[in-house]
Amino acid sequence: MSQYGMETFAQSDDVRKQQLVDANRILAHQNILDGFGHVSVRSVQNPLHFFQARSRAPALVDLDDIREFDENSELFESRDEALYGERFIHGEMYRARPDVQAVVHSHSFAAIPFGVAGIPLRPLCHQAAFLRGQVPVFEIRDAAGADNSMLITNCNLGAAVAAAMASAPAVLMRGHGNTVVAANLKQLVYRAIYTEINARLVLESLRLGTGLNYLNEYETANMADIADRAVDRPWEIWRRAAMTSSAP
Amino acid sequence: MSQYGMETFAQSDDVRKQQLVDANRILAHQNILDGFGHVSVRSVQNPLHFFQARSRAPALVDLDDIREFDENSELFESRDEALYGERFIHGEMYRARPDVQAVVHSHSFAAIPFGVAGIPLRPLCHQAAFLRGQVPVFEIRDAAGADNSMLITNCNLGAAVAAAMASAPAVLMRGHGNTVVAANLKQLVYRAIYTEINARLVLESLRLGTGLNYLNEYETANMADIADRAVDRPWEIWRRAAMTSSAP
Amino acid sequence: MSQYGMETFAQSDDVRKQQLVDANRILAHQNILDGFGHVSVRSVQNPLHFFQARSRAPALVDLDDIREFDENSELFESRDEALYGERFIHGEMYRARPDVQAVVHSHSFAAIPFGVAGIPLRPLCHQAAFLRGQVPVFEIRDAAGADNSMLITNCNLGAAVAAAMASAPAVLMRGHGNTVVAANLKQLVYRAIYTEINARLVLESLRLGTGLNYLNEYETANMADIADRAVDRPWEIWRRAAMTSSAP
Amino acid sequence: MSQYGMETFAQSDDVRKQQLVDANRILAHQNILDGFGHVSVRSVQNPLHFFQARSRAPALVDLDDIREFDENSELFESRDEALYGERFIHGEMYRARPDVQAVVHSHSFAAIPFGVAGIPLRPLCHQAAFLRGQVPVFEIRDAAGADNSMLITNCNLGAAVAAAMASAPAVLMRGHGNTVVAANLKQLVYRAIYTEINARLVLESLRLGTGLNYLNEYETANMADIADRAVDRPWEIWRRAAMTSSAP
Repeated sequence: MSQYGMETFAQSDDVRKQQLVDANRILAHQNILDGFGHVSVRSVQNPLHFFQARSRAPALVDLDDIREFDENSELFESRDEALYGERFIHGEMYRARPDVQAVVHSHSFAAIPFGVAGIPLRPLCHQAAFLRGQVPVFEIRDAAGADNSMLITNCNLGAAVAAAMASAPAVLMRGHGNTVVAANLKQLVYRAIYTEINARLVLESLRLGTGLNYLNEYETANMADIADRAVDRPWEIWRRAAMTSSAP
Repeated sequence: MSQYGMETFAQSDDVRKQQLVDANRILAHQNILDGFGHVSVRSVQNPLHFFQARSRAPALVDLDDIREFDENSELFESRDEALYGERFIHGEMYRARPDVQAVVHSHSFAAIPFGVAGIPLRPLCHQAAFLRGQVPVFEIRDAAGADNSMLITNCNLGAAVAAAMASAPAVLMRGHGNTVVAANLKQLVYRAIYTEINARLVLESLRLGTGLNYLNEYETANMADIADRAVDRPWEIWRRAAMTSSAP
Repeated sequence: MSQYGMETFAQSDDVRKQQLVDANRILAHQNILDGFGHVSVRSVQNPLHFFQARSRAPALVDLDDIREFDENSELFESRDEALYGERFIHGEMYRARPDVQAVVHSHSFAAIPFGVAGIPLRPLCHQAAFLRGQVPVFEIRDAAGADNSMLITNCNLGAAVAAAMASAPAVLMRGHGNTVVAANLKQLVYRAIYTEINARLVLESLRLGTGLNYLNEYETANMADIADRAVDRPWEIWRRAAMTSSAP
Repeated sequence: MSQYGMETFAQSDDVRKQQLVDANRILAHQNILDGFGHVSVRSVQNPLHFFQARSRAPALVDLDDIREFDENSELFESRDEALYGERFIHGEMYRARPDVQAVVHSHSFAAIPFGVAGIPLRPLCHQAAFLRGQVPVFEIRDAAGADNSMLITNCNLGAAVAAAMASAPAVLMRGHGNTVVAANLKQLVYRAIYTEINARLVLESLRLGTGLNYLNEYETANMADIADRAVDRPWEIWRRAAMTSSAP
């Protein structure tokens, strides 16, 4: 049913690594990832491990930039090269959430306001039904105190982000960005893009008043299942757009 | 008077199918259709039938993706392939509205807020005069109850959308998108694009206060007729832009 | 001092017609002109006449689309072809304003809200100093009554727009767009673009409160003179961007 | 650690001039610099002097457009050619701030509202931590009186801007734009871009209420140091995007 259906997805790390390159390019082209931010996928071979690029802008990531990381978010085969400083978000998500196969941490623009003000982010359009209830907010001051660096630079802080997310598909990080998880990379890309679109829709709709008509619990549950099976159609077009773009 | 004038438009399904490909590409390039959304045209040969692409992102639709659908929105010649899950919107519009020759269902961004908040969408600029009074809103909970999937997945729900639209040129679908109808594909593309532009204009204008000076009933009536005869000029440029765009 | 300095500008209709093609392309590429909207320049040879394209999307206008119009905004050499329906705006501006050598009528997005709500458009940034005081608003109901078509389709209505503008550099047209005038085409392009930018700036600034610190009368007077002499630098880059753009 | 690390940066004016061309192109491509605006770098050879382009749109600046300016912001080797009228901002920054090696003056859009309304610009996201407290605002009426031209056209006015900035990394100029300084050109480009992004984030967040949760003083101090060492990754992608862009 899908070019990389769930079964195929589960079978081969080679397929996952190639799809991870695509996900980097797509998320950069769709302005979810900027020069910073990063995306990863769990290893089939060793489910405690995950794949992620070395420190490089996502728009430029190629297959030979992909590295394997261990359960403590360190390089499986040590090299002397720069890595993403916040890779611990990924390792701790894979540790805390056996249901999760792919993780993206971004500074996706429109979601950030919902981490610094008093109105929660909730699904307003059917394509963002996967957000279900309101998206939790991680406040780093609760985990590291007032004198913190804003960044998730070790396993303890990564675990605190995972704890704040609990069983949700996404968590906002105050003054920083968000982290989204999914059962595969296509679903992850879809979720990251529609988290951003839904946030923009809420910001726009609030111009018309504050009593917005969000999706109800039936709608989020029913539609989320449908959307998770419909990610191939947009993936095809997002991938083509990213690959034919002359500029990164 | 028009490259595809009303008479030519009425004569040939081949011309309609080619124009349907153009409409797919234009509406994708103008950001009215995303990876989802779909556009159709009524058949001349069999006015109960309509043409629409198989399930594919509109930016990628080509002539050999076009299929014929019957009066129940099912494939006229059965094939084993994926179809748009909400094609029933189209079939029921053609059934309910003999004046309608073309239909588009989109998630056009700026119109969505007007379906989830308390301010109706009305024509604020002359190019959107065709909207006439305020655009009706379809609430799926009225048709399918609180426990619904948000999607129009059968003839009954399609008929409910058509009933909510009544004789209007457009209907908003709460938390979902909108559907626009027209007398031909060029007019349809024009209407879909200016519904979005008008919605953005209202959102922007509301920053200056809530007592906006909308078009009056004379202005909408007089200008709508003029605009419906002036769709060739923008079509030429929208089509060229879509066709010369390297990325989808 | 300028590639087309004021003296050169005054000398040759051939130069003006070539620059008019550039102005069409630039204003389309900068999203001031859409499929509709039009730009013109006064004739040196016959100062009651002006040059303007036949009815065509500005992004596609070429030298052989340029026509000469008489003092009543009709074709100087009659042909059987479509013309811009609102060309009377141009003819009446040239009649009423001997200081004006170039005119553009657009549906430039961000300026429209200031014609339908209660806050006037005033210069907030130095680059829009030429707007001087507040931009006047033309209400077609004052000229044509409640039962009007929104469009300026004859000399009388064009003269009413010119009267509303009086000696200003721009006039907003309620629910429709705006008209900008200038002493040459480069200045006109500059003014049309910065009218739009200034309008966007005011809309954004109003998010921070309503007591905005606009330019004072000295600042507008002093800076306007400077800006009118500095239009070559942006013209060079706008022209190059328009000409190297693959899509219209 | 960096392609142009701090040591290399300090060694050669040739490297600085080449990087200055890149900075011009990047800042134009990222919409920080428009047809106006300018960027400069201090000379290693003669630290009272600085390099800057002759009067040209930043998107078009090439190596042979770069000139050397003396401590009074005048051409070191006199030529008969147009220069940026506000180059005095640069010379006075280098005079007042020995810690500064690079300066950009722009009309970066989203920052302007914070100079004309009552809400100060403060760092809301971690990538803008370098802004530290609230960004000071320069009011030219305080330096030149009500009858001013808005422009910084001599050393005295430049010195007044530097005085308003004091030891801050940026200063807003009311109704005009802003000036940003840094220890090298990569850091400068980073700071200019994230000043704009942070301003947009604040504007968006204010839709959700006025009690925003800005970075605290520990967060700004800790994160600013980190960000200043992380500018290579985005520089690589911004440079590639600017260089492969077909249009300026």
